[in-house]
Amino acid sequence: MAETLDKRRTSEHARDLGIYDEDGFVDADFLDRLRSLVKAEKAAALIEMVEPLHESELGDILETLDAEPRQNLVRLLGNSFDYAALTEVDEAIRLAIVEAMPNQQIAEALGELDSDDAVYILEDIEEEDRKEILAALPFKERIRLRRSLEYPEESAGRRMQTEYISVPPYWSVGQTIDYMREDEDLPTSFAQIFVVDPTLKLIGAVELDRILRAKRPEKIEDIMHDTRHAIPAEMDQEEAAQIIEQYDLLSAAVVDADERLVGVLTIDDVIDIVQAEAEEDIKRLGGVGDEEISDTVMTAVRSRFTWLLVNLATAILASMVIGLYDATIQQMVALAVLMPIVASMGGNAGTQTMTVAVRALASRDIDLRNAGRIIRRESLIGLLNGVLFALIIGIVAALWFQSLGIGGVIAAAMVINMLAAALAGILIPLVLDNLGADPALASGTFVTTVTDVVGFFAFLGLAGWWFGLG
Amino acid sequence: MAETLDKRRTSEHARDLGIYDEDGFVDADFLDRLRSLVKAEKAAALIEMVEPLHESELGDILETLDAEPRQNLVRLLGNSFDYAALTEVDEAIRLAIVEAMPNQQIAEALGELDSDDAVYILEDIEEEDRKEILAALPFKERIRLRRSLEYPEESAGRRMQTEYISVPPYWSVGQTIDYMREDEDLPTSFAQIFVVDPTLKLIGAVELDRILRAKRPEKIEDIMHDTRHAIPAEMDQEEAAQIIEQYDLLSAAVVDADERLVGVLTIDDVIDIVQAEAEEDIKRLGGVGDEEISDTVMTAVRSRFTWLLVNLATAILASMVIGLYDATIQQMVALAVLMPIVASMGGNAGTQTMTVAVRALASRDIDLRNAGRIIRRESLIGLLNGVLFALIIGIVAALWFQSLGIGGVIAAAMVINMLAAALAGILIPLVLDNLGADPALASGTFVTTVTDVVGFFAFLGLAGWWFGLG
Repeated sequence: MAETLDKRRTSEHARDLGIYDEDGFVDADFLDRLRSLVKAEKAAALIEMVEPLHESELGDILETLDAEPRQNLVRLLGNSFDYAALTEVDEAIRLAIVEAMPNQQIAEALGELDSDDAVYILEDIEEEDRKEILAALPFKERIRLRRSLEYPEESAGRRMQTEYISVPPYWSVGQTIDYMREDEDLPTSFAQIFVVDPTLKLIGAVELDRILRAKRPEKIEDIMHDTRHAIPAEMDQEEAAQIIEQYDLLSAAVVDADERLVGVLTIDDVIDIVQAEAEEDIKRLGGVGDEEISDTVMTAVRSRFTWLLVNLATAILASMVIGLYDATIQQMVALAVLMPIVASMGGNAGTQTMTVAVRALASRDIDLRNAGRIIRRESLIGLLNGVLFALIIGIVAALWFQSLGIGGVIAAAMVINMLAAALAGILIPLVLDNLGADPALASGTFVTTVTDVVGFFAFLGLAGWWFGLG
Repeated sequence: MAETLDKRRTSEHARDLGIYDEDGFVDADFLDRLRSLVKAEKAAALIEMVEPLHESELGDILETLDAEPRQNLVRLLGNSFDYAALTEVDEAIRLAIVEAMPNQQIAEALGELDSDDAVYILEDIEEEDRKEILAALPFKERIRLRRSLEYPEESAGRRMQTEYISVPPYWSVGQTIDYMREDEDLPTSFAQIFVVDPTLKLIGAVELDRILRAKRPEKIEDIMHDTRHAIPAEMDQEEAAQIIEQYDLLSAAVVDADERLVGVLTIDDVIDIVQAEAEEDIKRLGGVGDEEISDTVMTAVRSRFTWLLVNLATAILASMVIGLYDATIQQMVALAVLMPIVASMGGNAGTQTMTVAVRALASRDIDLRNAGRIIRRESLIGLLNGVLFALIIGIVAALWFQSLGIGGVIAAAMVINMLAAALAGILIPLVLDNLGADPALASGTFVTTVTDVVGFFAFLGLAGWWFGLG
């Protein structure tokens, strides 16, 4: 992604306000001005500076500031603070800001937000505070938010917006348009309206452009279409996002267990979900779980420790393989010098195959049924690259240690380990996925364990046998 | 991503058609029926089976079939084949299908697609065929597609849709609605209309819900808003996606160098771009470049070879460090047994830091200016985990080889290498990014080179000095 980031966020709006520099970072001058206003406690000037900003821009500023000026900025902005910006920052920062506020103030702020943003902020707040905040909300909003919060974490019900427009099927287009003109309690923007029966059961939807193109006397039921992609509120947000994405929908109705309309999931939420899930995959492949850059040092140490501990266990296992051949190594130290090459090449080749496999699994391009084809493919790639690198390292090692035998042994070990890497790289993610585990989370360790163990075994074992050592 | 994939694609529509099994894969029975119809050349039955499918569902089927039945299916479907499905499959499959078709047929097919889909298919076709196809298109479409193709690859101009609605600012809401009711040449669906002056320069936009809520006599110029986020056609698609994403837009106007409206970029394209860019990052971090699962074995071998060759060079470098201490190892073989542990732990810790750094760079959370804070953070994490693992491995090694000296040496080497890993993990991506290189592509090799070299140096060097060997 990074290659093009240099020219990021150069939209006219942002350029006019001078928030971002040409590299897409929050502009240094802008920040300096902001910081000195905060220091001088000039609330009015700050409000004037921050008011025209989009919530995402204010979010970027909050993430860039240190904790102290950040809290002071929020305090000085007071009622002018755009609470929607809280949905644009890391969890740790969001919590720090919210915890410094009296619950009464949070309740007032939430009342002004869309319900999905309000839920997003509420769900991280501790049980007790949450109850107090909900109690301080007007009845209608309290009911809405409470219902959303009752759905499981990361479900469509948590991410949906409860503001939507629904009309009965027998209304005319004219009636519907008049209703939209007059009702003040409408969502801030919307792309379709829903059609429900008297029990609120969802029976259809109409896109706005379809309404605009219809004549006023036409009946809604004649221009509506079935909502074939209605999303159960209990559905995982990722699945819901995949449906909206697959069928290129602008929004989708969310329904409860009785197929009653309870909310709407919009495509901009889908983008956030897609981003978050891709981020999760990358972090899991890199062994850092759900860590965020704003987490405290102790949180980061703890989350990384587990992964490193697993790696230590597998590294010790690989060492024990070497330990089996200590007599062999003592008689030929060249083996100790060369052995990490075989293991390292296997590890990299295995990671390549694993990356392809994890991605193919995520997009449902492979499964156990068509695994035969993909296993043959990866084995062939492993074999071919194995032979190529066997030739290269064989020649290099033979020249380096002036021994054809060493060149032959490392070449043979290389072919074996590259094949093992291909098989481990494809089979381990497949099996993990089939067991219901996340292949992105665990495959890496297992794959490199295999390539280390096979690499050391093959190289040291072959050498011991060939040279009659040990 | 994978943990929840099990329940994927269970939308009512797909369930009714029976295309997907409960794991979200193309259903085996469905495929079997399809394959036997293809084999029996029953075109009519096939058309009946495939016609109700969404383009993305047909795309999934094309990706699941082997080359021969796939080509036969497309041939048997004839004019009933939904060409939009071509935008849903891997490049290799798309090219195979298109190359088997006469250019005249492709031209007819493209005429029925939205312009962005047509460009997507055209841009991969070879120059000569492309010219012939364009020549066979009606004048208006030829001009449109040619203009899109003149913009750079992966630019907003390539991804935009050239079907949009634009009206002059002095029109009334009523006039605009009547125009939309009568004009047949409209985009299939749209969320906003654009306002242009007589020279086609963009001056504003109005969302459909705003039009619906306005009274018929109101003037468009009174309800339109500035298009503060208009996107230059030359802009990279990723930047454009980031603007649409940051400001939660449903679509954005694309303008040429003279600020004339030339197209519209819609949010469903943005999702595809976000997906593609995340996929690219994951693959680059895994060392498989732009490889797709449908690439041929030779393409995959070639693309992976380069990365493995770089890794071989760095592995040899690490071996040369070991080579410096061959006499030390000969006197104490335990060192050869233990040395991969230090290197491996450093490699993993470095990868963790690097993953956090690459993600933070991609989302502009860090840069060289605030690097101090992040470098201190990562060093502290590295130091703390270094001390923890030094204790663990120190005790394990001391017990294993019955030597306090060995335990002390490996513990000290572990602290040093974990610190080096933290510094390499943060500094290498920062420097690469600052040089304009993609940190996702190259950081991995450099980081593990540092941790291998420092790991072997620290451990073998300390051991040689402590035990007076070498």
